[in-house]
Amino acid sequence: MGFHFKIIAKDRETGARLGEMTTLHGKVQTPAFMPVGTQGTVKGLLPETMAGLGVEIVLGNTYHLYLRPGHELIGRLGGLHRFMNWNRPILTDSGGYQVYSLGALRKITDEGVLFQSHIDGTRCFITPADAVRIQETLGSDIMMCLDECTPYPVLSEYAEKSLELTLRWAARSRESRRSGTGQALFGIIQGGVFPSLRKKSLEETVAIGFDGYALGGLSVGEPKEDMYGIVSGFGRKMPEDHPRYLMGVGLPEDIVACVGDGMDLFDCVIPTRCARNGLLFTNTGKVVIKNAIYREDDGPVDPLCDCYTCRNYSRAYLRHLYTAGEVLAVILNTIHNVRYYMSLMEKIRLSIRNGSYGQFRREFPVRSGEPPDCETAGRDEPPDKRR
Amino acid sequence: MGFHFKIIAKDRETGARLGEMTTLHGKVQTPAFMPVGTQGTVKGLLPETMAGLGVEIVLGNTYHLYLRPGHELIGRLGGLHRFMNWNRPILTDSGGYQVYSLGALRKITDEGVLFQSHIDGTRCFITPADAVRIQETLGSDIMMCLDECTPYPVLSEYAEKSLELTLRWAARSRESRRSGTGQALFGIIQGGVFPSLRKKSLEETVAIGFDGYALGGLSVGEPKEDMYGIVSGFGRKMPEDHPRYLMGVGLPEDIVACVGDGMDLFDCVIPTRCARNGLLFTNTGKVVIKNAIYREDDGPVDPLCDCYTCRNYSRAYLRHLYTAGEVLAVILNTIHNVRYYMSLMEKIRLSIRNGSYGQFRREFPVRSGEPPDCETAGRDEPPDKRR
Repeated sequence: MGFHFKIIAKDRETGARLGEMTTLHGKVQTPAFMPVGTQGTVKGLLPETMAGLGVEIVLGNTYHLYLRPGHELIGRLGGLHRFMNWNRPILTDSGGYQVYSLGALRKITDEGVLFQSHIDGTRCFITPADAVRIQETLGSDIMMCLDECTPYPVLSEYAEKSLELTLRWAARSRESRRSGTGQALFGIIQGGVFPSLRKKSLEETVAIGFDGYALGGLSVGEPKEDMYGIVSGFGRKMPEDHPRYLMGVGLPEDIVACVGDGMDLFDCVIPTRCARNGLLFTNTGKVVIKNAIYREDDGPVDPLCDCYTCRNYSRAYLRHLYTAGEVLAVILNTIHNVRYYMSLMEKIRLSIRNGSYGQFRREFPVRSGEPPDCETAGRDEPPDKRR
Repeated sequence: MGFHFKIIAKDRETGARLGEMTTLHGKVQTPAFMPVGTQGTVKGLLPETMAGLGVEIVLGNTYHLYLRPGHELIGRLGGLHRFMNWNRPILTDSGGYQVYSLGALRKITDEGVLFQSHIDGTRCFITPADAVRIQETLGSDIMMCLDECTPYPVLSEYAEKSLELTLRWAARSRESRRSGTGQALFGIIQGGVFPSLRKKSLEETVAIGFDGYALGGLSVGEPKEDMYGIVSGFGRKMPEDHPRYLMGVGLPEDIVACVGDGMDLFDCVIPTRCARNGLLFTNTGKVVIKNAIYREDDGPVDPLCDCYTCRNYSRAYLRHLYTAGEVLAVILNTIHNVRYYMSLMEKIRLSIRNGSYGQFRREFPVRSGEPPDCETAGRDEPPDKRR
């Protein structure tokens, strides 16, 4: 019936699992990282390039595609896969996080969300059933329920009301989905940083019954220990036989930590956005490519990387392209960062298979407790921050 | 000795020639069009992509590379080919046109040009010998002499003085070139729209002796008939056994016309710049991709085009990418426009080989007497307009 998940191996020491998701558009080895393709393209990459980097699944943003070019247009043209020429799996979010990010431009009621387009100010109203219908029209392989993303900091009373709303919406999403499409629908567990609320949200979301479960509302500003606390406290309690998706996370060290707590799926704009801002991930730490020390550096960004960029270009050339504002800087930097992430996921999966993930996790360097400073470079972008 | 040119076939009816240039980095079939790689990259294209489109030679801008990252840096890193990962032929201009474009920011004396950097205002002074040395350091396959580009409109007295300066500079360029590098050096014929001056410039430039000859100072604002008049009047009088290069031209119909007057080499930013501004060349006319008529157009940009973009993407998707300001719009549009130009050159060469170029030229549609309106979209670019 389209969607299936199986566990292939479990790590001896940690909660890490090696798995395989089968979707309408093929299989995904997990743990997997999904590059973000906000507007029907992962910025700067051709689909064939993504496949060559090892990308098996991308995330599409329902909010953006709903507003422009419109889900119905995409549906009439054969769906999102055909529109963007990507024939592998796609997960679409519900738009809930983007709407939440709009702040004063949105109003949330029991019926759904009222918001104004960031593009032209048009007023839009979306119910949980609408969000499912939009994603069905886009034709994504994995759909997400509309949820209210609990902000941080927040009072427990608000967080509880919010999660109850998300639960009601989850039930309506489940009811409204069309049968027989083969598309998966994932529920989202909210509850902020409050363990009792997370527990309630987990139990009741599972009671509704979905093809997979996500931890939402993390990486929204809470201290990193709190995020780790929720993931380590609840990751392994999420249903064993379904994929577990940690939304909007994150840095390489976050992924390594949370795989150990049983998480299978990740997405984040960090590799692609940082690439556009000249911040490159390497096996020996981060490289800020505009730095003058790279002016005459003839070596590759990362001597341990097998990507096209590292095999063919010097740091000096990448610095020149970035400084000169060249489009090729975006392309080459994004190729490198996405390959870094895909290579990391390959190492993670290999370690789990070998039963040595505990050691891998202990030895993985934590470069910094803070997210890299790559979201501040003033790009003129629509709100595509991911939680 | 590095550089060689041979004629393979001549058209029966027109002055068109099919030829082959042999350079340090391989052969180029002529007539050839050179995409412009201003800052060490043809904007939006990987080198492998260019090769796949049929590009055999690109143009690099000496002025830009001299200022940033600096020719000496590029030289220390192994030359421009290695720096930009392009192992096929490169022609570099001398920087004369860019300096001319700076207007009030430059002063021309008999010794050379004094100008201020458009990047940081640094004052620079370049002699004809410097221009050769810079290009030798970059390692280009074909170097151009520093010239003064005669503006339009201009008095014949000024044009004459200007071409005499260009002739003195040409002699100094010739003298200052290092022997044994295998790099070619081309002379530039000036003289504005004045036939007597063009004749003088041609004779005296040929008397100095170069590996190839260019017509410069055209497409700088003169009526198109004047440009055609100079090319038809002097193209076939340029040395038969050397490549003839029409600098900064142009539109497809210009290239088709001027090949018939014996020109072998062309360069222009039109295909790449127009691509970035959403203007696409097709076999049935120009497509302004942002137009609302393409909103739901499921067809390719050009049903007769064999490029990657046309084989995989709809006009609707390209319109969406352009409207959303996506990097992929630049990539896909540039692939298409460059392929259109390369495909045109292939058809031109085939017609000459078949002896039917006269017919090809007569039947080639002239879409418009004016250049397409694609230079006005207010990109924040350094002065990389090509004459």
